[in-house]
Amino acid sequence: MIPTYDDERIDYTPGRTRQVIQSPNVFAFSMDAVLLARFVYLPIQKGDILDLCTGNGIVPLLLTERSKARMVGVEIQERLFEMAIRNSQLNDLEQQLTFMNLDLKDLPKNMPMHSFDVVTCNPPYFANLNEDLLNDNPYLAIARHEIHCSLDDVLRVSSQMVKNRGKVAIVHRPERITELIEGMKRYRIEPKRLQFIHPKAGAEANIVLIEGMLGGNSGVKVLPPLTVYDGNGKYTIEFQQVFAGQ
Amino acid sequence: MIPTYDDERIDYTPGRTRQVIQSPNVFAFSMDAVLLARFVYLPIQKGDILDLCTGNGIVPLLLTERSKARMVGVEIQERLFEMAIRNSQLNDLEQQLTFMNLDLKDLPKNMPMHSFDVVTCNPPYFANLNEDLLNDNPYLAIARHEIHCSLDDVLRVSSQMVKNRGKVAIVHRPERITELIEGMKRYRIEPKRLQFIHPKAGAEANIVLIEGMLGGNSGVKVLPPLTVYDGNGKYTIEFQQVFAGQ
Repeated sequence: MIPTYDDERIDYTPGRTRQVIQSPNVFAFSMDAVLLARFVYLPIQKGDILDLCTGNGIVPLLLTERSKARMVGVEIQERLFEMAIRNSQLNDLEQQLTFMNLDLKDLPKNMPMHSFDVVTCNPPYFANLNEDLLNDNPYLAIARHEIHCSLDDVLRVSSQMVKNRGKVAIVHRPERITELIEGMKRYRIEPKRLQFIHPKAGAEANIVLIEGMLGGNSGVKVLPPLTVYDGNGKYTIEFQQVFAGQ
Repeated sequence: MIPTYDDERIDYTPGRTRQVIQSPNVFAFSMDAVLLARFVYLPIQKGDILDLCTGNGIVPLLLTERSKARMVGVEIQERLFEMAIRNSQLNDLEQQLTFMNLDLKDLPKNMPMHSFDVVTCNPPYFANLNEDLLNDNPYLAIARHEIHCSLDDVLRVSSQMVKNRGKVAIVHRPERITELIEGMKRYRIEPKRLQFIHPKAGAEANIVLIEGMLGGNSGVKVLPPLTVYDGNGKYTIEFQQVFAGQ
């Protein structure tokens, strides 16, 4: 038995292939993390994947459905790092998954540079540090606001850790897509694939997925959009298939 | 009667509010020009609008459905410039529309800078100059390839001609969206609205519409996507409504 704390629960991932310990007080995975894990191109049989801002390890956990590559998750918050380790134990994935309790900005000092085939990240979305919010819950504040790392930090470290012609995949808010694209280009990560998620038909996008290649040629593909809810407030069939990993 | 040449025909615009002289050998308007004219934010009662690479004047012609603003179209090719003038005559729009036969790069020397509320452009899409293509038909080559003006030229001149906090709206290929965004930012045109057009459900986008504001704040909205054809190869209802300007 893997120990859990009082405020923790064990859920299934969408598609029900993995179990995941989480806590609404500390970290619970979002649709965004799942979409990132479904979106990114992966080596199937072997390779090395790095997940920054890994939280409770949800992205690597989902990626193990699609790839036998070794995966490293980096998380600055000790409580979440420790939850990620229990999640790998819970799913018997300790051979494939490694977690590091580290500030991602220190990663290039601690690991060989340009050693990963793929880097993924579901970073904090909000640049503005709202004091009121921050005081409320430091775990969630750190996960949501750029307190310990900015988007620039994420992209710079990604470009340092990924192999030449390796992939960097990020999920973010469409409001910040110009920053994302500018930042990727600044670090020679050429945007190659974009996908927008719309909560319902006729609504603006509220999630963007972007994948770039270090040292890639210019030229972007904009994938078919995904619409989450139908007119009855249920998941659309196309979304349900992606979300469940089918 | 407005004179037409042997290779010209008179068509209706989508929605049938305007007639337009065009020629498949020289210039015929595309879906892209129509979508740009439907997409851009406009002053309704008065103001000044500039259309670069105007061709036979299709974009200003369509914009007169939505706005009483004065409009200037700039076209480098004399044959198309002259066709644009006949199009304004054909529709009794000579009071509202002015055309200039000019290289757009000379515009800041010839008109007051920062004097337009809105700048629109459906520029040449292709950066690569393919000699074989170019020799075939110089009219179409100039309209499609960056022979006389690059995307950078279009964005630089747009930023010089538009008022502070005025709008610049461009239609282009999604492959070049990173260049578009980088170029707009380079000239302080902050991207504010994006829309992708997909030829059918499940297909990658093949047209992007982007609107920025000179000196605007950062923060982009990604509008609901438009799908052009349904499963039977007919226009979707949503597309038909936009295309016909309803």
